Amino acid sequence: MTNQDDQFKKVVSHAKEYGYVFQSSEIYDGLSAVYDYAQNGAELKKNIRDYWWKAVVQMHDNIVGIDSSIFMHPTTWKASGHVDAFNDPLIDNKDSKKRYRADVLIEDYCAKIEGKIDKEVDKAAKRFGDAFNKEEFISTNPRVVGYYDKIKTILSRMAKSLESEDLADVKALIEELEIADPLTGSRNWTEVKQFNLMFGTKLGASAESAMDLYLRPETAQGIFVNFLNVQKTGRMKIPFGIAQTGKAFRNEIVARQFIFRMREFEQMEMQFFIKPGTQKEWFEHWKETRMKWHLSLGMGDENYRFHDHEKLAHYADAATDIEFKFPFGFKELEGIHSRTDFDLKQHEEFSGKKLQYFDHETNESYTPYVLETSIGLDRMFLAVFSNALVEEELDNNTTRTVLKLPAVLAPVKAAILPLVKKDGLPEIARQIMDDLKWDFNVAYDEKDAVGRRYRRQDANGTPFCITVDHDTLEDQTVTIRHRDTMEQTRVKIEDLRDLIKKEVDMKSWLKKI
Amino acid sequence: MTNQDDQFKKVVSHAKEYGYVFQSSEIYDGLSAVYDYAQNGAELKKNIRDYWWKAVVQMHDNIVGIDSSIFMHPTTWKASGHVDAFNDPLIDNKDSKKRYRADVLIEDYCAKIEGKIDKEVDKAAKRFGDAFNKEEFISTNPRVVGYYDKIKTILSRMAKSLESEDLADVKALIEELEIADPLTGSRNWTEVKQFNLMFGTKLGASAESAMDLYLRPETAQGIFVNFLNVQKTGRMKIPFGIAQTGKAFRNEIVARQFIFRMREFEQMEMQFFIKPGTQKEWFEHWKETRMKWHLSLGMGDENYRFHDHEKLAHYADAATDIEFKFPFGFKELEGIHSRTDFDLKQHEEFSGKKLQYFDHETNESYTPYVLETSIGLDRMFLAVFSNALVEEELDNNTTRTVLKLPAVLAPVKAAILPLVKKDGLPEIARQIMDDLKWDFNVAYDEKDAVGRRYRRQDANGTPFCITVDHDTLEDQTVTIRHRDTMEQTRVKIEDLRDLIKKEVDMKSWLKKI
Repeated sequence: MTNQDDQFKKVVSHAKEYGYVFQSSEIYDGLSAVYDYAQNGAELKKNIRDYWWKAVVQMHDNIVGIDSSIFMHPTTWKASGHVDAFNDPLIDNKDSKKRYRADVLIEDYCAKIEGKIDKEVDKAAKRFGDAFNKEEFISTNPRVVGYYDKIKTILSRMAKSLESEDLADVKALIEELEIADPLTGSRNWTEVKQFNLMFGTKLGASAESAMDLYLRPETAQGIFVNFLNVQKTGRMKIPFGIAQTGKAFRNEIVARQFIFRMREFEQMEMQFFIKPGTQKEWFEHWKETRMKWHLSLGMGDENYRFHDHEKLAHYADAATDIEFKFPFGFKELEGIHSRTDFDLKQHEEFSGKKLQYFDHETNESYTPYVLETSIGLDRMFLAVFSNALVEEELDNNTTRTVLKLPAVLAPVKAAILPLVKKDGLPEIARQIMDDLKWDFNVAYDEKDAVGRRYRRQDANGTPFCITVDHDTLEDQTVTIRHRDTMEQTRVKIEDLRDLIKKEVDMKSWLKKI
Repeated sequence: MTNQDDQFKKVVSHAKEYGYVFQSSEIYDGLSAVYDYAQNGAELKKNIRDYWWKAVVQMHDNIVGIDSSIFMHPTTWKASGHVDAFNDPLIDNKDSKKRYRADVLIEDYCAKIEGKIDKEVDKAAKRFGDAFNKEEFISTNPRVVGYYDKIKTILSRMAKSLESEDLADVKALIEELEIADPLTGSRNWTEVKQFNLMFGTKLGASAESAMDLYLRPETAQGIFVNFLNVQKTGRMKIPFGIAQTGKAFRNEIVARQFIFRMREFEQMEMQFFIKPGTQKEWFEHWKETRMKWHLSLGMGDENYRFHDHEKLAHYADAATDIEFKFPFGFKELEGIHSRTDFDLKQHEEFSGKKLQYFDHETNESYTPYVLETSIGLDRMFLAVFSNALVEEELDNNTTRTVLKLPAVLAPVKAAILPLVKKDGLPEIARQIMDDLKWDFNVAYDEKDAVGRRYRRQDANGTPFCITVDHDTLEDQTVTIRHRDTMEQTRVKIEDLRDLIKKEVDMKSWLKKI
């Protein structure tokens, strides 16, 4: 098992043990690729959503939020292209009856070749020691060069076949590479078929009149169909944005990596409506603005990078991902897409209604272009959570597990601990809690020795522990302990609120942007 | 058209015109009984949700929140009884091919008889003038007494037939009463059949392995299946509560009254786990606590009442509704139910897992009883919105439309208005906005005469207008105008934040509870 796998397993088990994420319907042995947010997870998720909403909606007087329904008129998904083109190429193994994504089988095959490259590099590195130049080795070693060529040939053929819908050739490629069912080794494959990823359901009771509905696979279309209503009733002037957060659903065949790719997930999207021709500058503006939002959380600038798309979706004229370093490597966290007027034009065509903006200054009407920022809330949760989980070696040769969540996002801001369960200390601790709870989500903990309670709150991600001891009775002061530094200082009870507020208030974090 | 209908129509059209609620997928001519929350509606809905969450979760150290998924293992709904018993009795008209709820057809028939009673009463009231005693007339007039008897006989027979699943008798009743299709007058009916209200979908791609799923019809079960995981990882001691907000779905046949009954809706539920035998006192406790929460919003104490259930659901040993006076009369807004151990016991039986609580003090294990508080977020929205919409006669014989939303829930807290669009006033106004937006959702409005802007903000529900004029340049003061009183006072710019905060801060509203 690699270090990455090891770290990822720790993330998953810590998420369960400390009440962040549970498997859905666990008592019924779970539901694949669906998860529930537990008592701490629900607060962390809510705090991330609020931090996004405040930065994107409240801080911009030309961006408003909406909350559109999951059910939409089915023609929406014809217009958006999802009915025809939101497919995965699937292949069944006739012996095992298991179903796979054909493209993933091929990608996994290439990943194995990459593993061989890594081995060659490791061997050479050992052989040459300090004199080893990785770049040079990779570009000159004939075996490695051969591997790279093979990967490139395979992936480009696959991409071409998928694009031209030549599924027979995808099947041929699988056969030529002698790819076998990873579970059974069988190479007895069916044809490759396209499978639509939308979940379907039926609205209405009567068999004749029931309407085929889809669970929305993205929240964006709920913004496009409401564009003109919002613009008119909100008296919005271009450029302006419409944002929303909400659930979306995709019937993923390969759904793995915990909450990274789920069948039910939550998006935070903003569509920014602009004048055609200005999309390049707005693309740059939103790339920069969104990256600053991420960096404001202080999770390590080195853990983010842009990945510009070379191959663009049919609706885009520019696209980039903000990638984050997850335990399993750099992966997409947020997408920023210049979507042109594709969506509005499609809805104009399918609805027969004009979706144009009338510019009072120039007296002309036009279909706006759209700049989209789209982030997976669950992915953001995983980024924050996995980045925060640390095992620290302490001076006394012990280790502590600490969840160094950005204080603004932490579920519980402070735990109030009476040193002992007597002498009136619990009463004072509860008084402090009852006072602070008006402003912060706080907890009370009186069980076990105080050192053990500190460790528990560290693992829980609580930024502050407030300890009430016998001196408190005399001088109305308490010890405040900082999670990350373990530093303890003595402060007056009456100063607690301001002290905590300074560290956890959204305002002070947003000011870093 | 009655006054009630008239007022309700105004509510619906105001909701659209001022960006609160749009019909879903309106450009595709809408989707029946599904709505979207627009730019102001999304904020109002979010504020209601946050006000509930803060009061129920954050203010109680023994209540935690979760966020469980809409998809759950299908056995959940067998255990809960929804697969077998979550049905409506439906009947089709063979000529019109229209489908109806059989019980609603019968209830509508009775409503017509009630209409006749009203007519008799009106006639008599006119005839007798001041001498008219309504109570006495109703209980002695033979015709009216006959009408009442008829209604009673019909409804009690229907209730009996539905309870015993004697659907043939429901059909017989419809035929005996000669009830006709309200659209066509045809009496050519099919048999009455039970129809399940859950939306179904399929998870997974392969035909053999696809799993039949339901969209959850309530959020409560997501709490029950997670009960033990939350209790253990959260180290919760009974009594304790688990709360959540989230979407639920019901394939309602008769879905009307705007957002009052939707096919996709949002619930705010809290399940409070208690020791068996203590349910009566906790029932009273939560009745009182929840009513106080409602009253804290200041929407008129006379608009609320309890409606205790006489006929209890199979899982309940006590139940009451908090009813609110909607434009169409008193209707259920929140339910408070003593659910006994029904749900946990059912999940124990269907999952084969023990869902018991171990009490460390008494060293005994037991299945907890549950006290539930369940409120429809969309209904709460409608209650707040419809109650707030007022047309006021002013002294100068004009009227103004004002949306007197509780300030804590208002989408936009303050609008900043430069008196004129020149002389540097817009710049100061924008500065004030940029300063206040860190704390509040604020808007900027410079179009039209200031009086017209005041009216617009009144109709929008904005509690404060802040006007920047030429004196502002001299003395750094502005006019602040209060929506409800239209009172205007002169204040220093530097005092604005505290002044607004005092009126809109959740803390000060919660302190009224």
